[in-house]
Amino acid sequence: MKTLTKYIYFNTKNRIEFVNITNQIEEIVSESKIKEGIVLVNPMHITASVYINDAESGLIEDYKEWLKKLVPEKDYKHNLTGEDNAFSHLMRTIMGREVTIAITNGKLDFGTWEQIYYAEFDGQRKKRVLVKVLGE
Amino acid sequence: MKTLTKYIYFNTKNRIEFVNITNQIEEIVSESKIKEGIVLVNPMHITASVYINDAESGLIEDYKEWLKKLVPEKDYKHNLTGEDNAFSHLMRTIMGREVTIAITNGKLDFGTWEQIYYAEFDGQRKKRVLVKVLGE
Amino acid sequence: MKTLTKYIYFNTKNRIEFVNITNQIEEIVSESKIKEGIVLVNPMHITASVYINDAESGLIEDYKEWLKKLVPEKDYKHNLTGEDNAFSHLMRTIMGREVTIAITNGKLDFGTWEQIYYAEFDGQRKKRVLVKVLGE
Repeated sequence: MKTLTKYIYFNTKNRIEFVNITNQIEEIVSESKIKEGIVLVNPMHITASVYINDAESGLIEDYKEWLKKLVPEKDYKHNLTGEDNAFSHLMRTIMGREVTIAITNGKLDFGTWEQIYYAEFDGQRKKRVLVKVLGE
Repeated sequence: MKTLTKYIYFNTKNRIEFVNITNQIEEIVSESKIKEGIVLVNPMHITASVYINDAESGLIEDYKEWLKKLVPEKDYKHNLTGEDNAFSHLMRTIMGREVTIAITNGKLDFGTWEQIYYAEFDGQRKKRVLVKVLGE
Repeated sequence: MKTLTKYIYFNTKNRIEFVNITNQIEEIVSESKIKEGIVLVNPMHITASVYINDAESGLIEDYKEWLKKLVPEKDYKHNLTGEDNAFSHLMRTIMGREVTIAITNGKLDFGTWEQIYYAEFDGQRKKRVLVKVLGE
């Protein structure tokens, strides 16, 4: 069994921002030389998500508006600690923390439209994503 | 380390439909002869989910009604591309993309009520689910 | 490849209760002697979640209130079976079933604030969480 562990860094211009990271993950899988296995991709923060969906700008705007409806602005108790990012924790919960992706014949075993996104909900500061490749 | 990769196909009668795939996954795990490991199960599409919950028809109706509340009909920007399936992408987001399941002693290591479902939100056409078994 | 499989048990005092299980998972990873790999953590029940987020009591209260808004009390069809826990299945769906966590240098490869929680939505009875460690 082989593994490869990499960290990729983000510092988004906007507090809420969606970044397509498919190419970066493909490169790490290629570098690992693993032919059959899995790759785990997750933020190392609790106010961001990694998820798989469409690289379509309209859908990304829909996500942002929809998350604001599901996570309304209010006086969250978490914000009594001096934070103002309770909404970021809840939006990350809807979008999920991590993805596990199959590697077959040395490549991400993806359907036509699957793309990997980093979704930032409390950006404008340095953040990390962990990529762990495992297989043979 | 051994792996087995299989694809299973769906073409649901209804646009939104939930299909119990537990038996199919059990058969693939059995075929793999892997005794200790994991199995990853995910749609290769971005308008469908694989999730684990109850094989109870009332709950499945509850899911469908609840998702309609969480994802109301409206003029989503994604639909300006000519698509009419923005709701399918959002419902899939709530239900999740994938499940990773432990294999112990050659079987899915499940509690009494755990069942694996394929949830289709934009069906009536050919779709695929990836099953990747990994272990020893 | 090595694996270690453990089950941990819960019987929460309250029907809805969140329990920090990070230390228990760290101990199991340490016991496995696996240096590079993954650990899968999931409830073996369909009315509970394992998720990763903040060990902050205000946020946990926010989660509970928010889930009640997203899953309103109503006459769910599942409850016609004699159950009264349809809400528990839906809350578990929002919070997710499982987490897969990277192990690097023999430890959970976590950012500063990542903590693993067991979220019970139908407690006051014996429940199990599966922990599967896999790697080398």
